Amino acid sequence: MNHAQLFENIVRKKSFLCVGLDSEIDKIPSFLLKEKDPVFAFNRMIVDATHKYTVAYKPNVAFYECHGASGWEALEATVDYIHKKYTDILLIADAKRGDIGNTSKMYAKAFLEKMPFDAVTVAPYMGEDSVTPFLSYEGKWVVLLALTSNKGADDFQYHDEDGIKLFERVLTVSQKWGNIDNMMYVVGATRAEKLKDIRKLVPDNFLLVPGVGAQGGSLQDVAKYGMNSKCGLLVNSSRGIIFANNSENFDKVAGEKAREIQLEMAQYLKEHKII
Amino acid sequence: MNHAQLFENIVRKKSFLCVGLDSEIDKIPSFLLKEKDPVFAFNRMIVDATHKYTVAYKPNVAFYECHGASGWEALEATVDYIHKKYTDILLIADAKRGDIGNTSKMYAKAFLEKMPFDAVTVAPYMGEDSVTPFLSYEGKWVVLLALTSNKGADDFQYHDEDGIKLFERVLTVSQKWGNIDNMMYVVGATRAEKLKDIRKLVPDNFLLVPGVGAQGGSLQDVAKYGMNSKCGLLVNSSRGIIFANNSENFDKVAGEKAREIQLEMAQYLKEHKII
Repeated sequence: MNHAQLFENIVRKKSFLCVGLDSEIDKIPSFLLKEKDPVFAFNRMIVDATHKYTVAYKPNVAFYECHGASGWEALEATVDYIHKKYTDILLIADAKRGDIGNTSKMYAKAFLEKMPFDAVTVAPYMGEDSVTPFLSYEGKWVVLLALTSNKGADDFQYHDEDGIKLFERVLTVSQKWGNIDNMMYVVGATRAEKLKDIRKLVPDNFLLVPGVGAQGGSLQDVAKYGMNSKCGLLVNSSRGIIFANNSENFDKVAGEKAREIQLEMAQYLKEHKII
Repeated sequence: MNHAQLFENIVRKKSFLCVGLDSEIDKIPSFLLKEKDPVFAFNRMIVDATHKYTVAYKPNVAFYECHGASGWEALEATVDYIHKKYTDILLIADAKRGDIGNTSKMYAKAFLEKMPFDAVTVAPYMGEDSVTPFLSYEGKWVVLLALTSNKGADDFQYHDEDGIKLFERVLTVSQKWGNIDNMMYVVGATRAEKLKDIRKLVPDNFLLVPGVGAQGGSLQDVAKYGMNSKCGLLVNSSRGIIFANNSENFDKVAGEKAREIQLEMAQYLKEHKII
C-alpha cells in the first residue's frame, strides 16, 4: 500500500484510526479462554466489529512474544486473517526492532516476507544500516520512532546539539533514507504541542500517533497540530477500544467505541476540507 | 548469575568469550537439513564443542524470528538445552527490545520468565521506563546499547550536547537505573579506541563487545583499553566460530576456533594479573 492508497482509504472510511491489538490474555473476556487459540479468537471478533471504522491494525509484538512459539502462532493467524479478509487495511507490526544491517534484514524478512505486514516500527538508535533493510520492500513501510509517548522519551530524545534535538535529527537525517511512500514516524499524542514544529521538518510523511485515550493525549490537539492536506495521521487507540468491555458483547462495544472515534475523526477531516 | 559469579567463571575458564549463535539456516552444514529441527541440531553441536572455552552464548533473535513460530521453537530448544546442561554459562538474548513500560514488561517476561535467558540486549532510545522492567528480575541483566559496532552508529550516537555525546549520556544516565550486578553495555570492538574514555564513565560494569573478527575489531585493542580488574569484558564472536567450516567436522573446527580465541584471552588476563 502506498501513500495515495492509504489516503484513499482514509477518505472513503472518513477515518484515520489505527486499532492497537495489544491483546493481553489476562484482559480478554474469560469465555474465550475455552477456544483453541483465545487470543486469535479475540482479535478476529475485534477486527470484524471494528474494520469499518479503521484504516490500520497494529498488534504490539510484545503481547504475543511473551507466550513464546504459541504466541507467535496467534500473531501469524491474526495477520493472515486480516490480510485475506480486509484488503483495505494497513497492517503495522509494532515491533520496535533495529540491529546491524545483515541482522535487520532478518527482522524485515520476519515481518514483511514471512508475515504479510505492510509496516514495521523501527528504533533509530543504530542508524541508517539498521533501518534501510526494511525499506527495500516495494509497497511496505518503516515507522521510525521519533518522539515517543512515554515519560522516558525525556531521557534521550531531547538531547540537544546546537539547538537540534535528537528526535529532530532522527526526522531530518532519515528523510534521506526513505520517502512519503515508505517512511512514517511515531510521534506520541502526549507530545501534541510538538506536532506543529515536527510538521515543519516532515511536512508530507504520515505520522503514527499513539497515546490518545489511556495515555492521556487529545485527538483534537493531534488533528489541530498534526494534520496535513492528505491527513498525514494515523491515530492509534488500543485499550480504550479492545478492552472497553469484557462481557460476551465485548466486540459490539469495541465497534461502538471505534465508531465514536471515527465520527470525531470525520469532523476533523471536514474542518480540514479533506472530505 | 551476578557479577561475582560471572567473574568466577571467567577466571576458571580463562576466557571472556561469548559465542554468538546467529545460526542462519542457509549457512549451516547441509547434512543437518535432514534433522527435524536443523537449527537446534546445529546449535547443540556448536555448544557441546565450544562450551569449555566460553562463558556466554548469545543467540541473535532475528535469525530465529525470521522463521516464525518454528524459529521461535528452535530458540526455545537451544536455550533450554544450554540452561539445563551447562550451568556456568550466561545466556544473552540479543533482541534489542525496548518499548513503553507496560510493553517492555511483556518483552522481559518473554526472555527472562518464559525462556531461561540471563540477559537481554535493550535499545535505550525510549528511556528509563523502557529499560527498568528488565531490571526487576533478581540475578538477570540488561545489556544496554551504548556505542554499537556498525556504520550507522555515527548517525545519532555521537549527537553532542555540550561536549557530551548521546552514547555517553546513555552510559551515565543509566547508571542510576541499575548496578554492576544487573547492567552491562554494548560497545562495539570497531570503536575500541573509545573504550578508554568509556571506562572513565562506567569503570566497573561489564561491557559486551561485538565486532571482533568478521566486522574487523581487534581483540588485543579491546583488552588493552577495556579490561578492568574484574575483566569487565565479554567479547562476542559469531561467524568466525560457528561458520568456520561447514563439513561434517564443523563442530570440531568451531571448538578449535573458540580454543584459539580463549588462549589469546588467557594471555590478556595474565597480562592484567587477573589469572
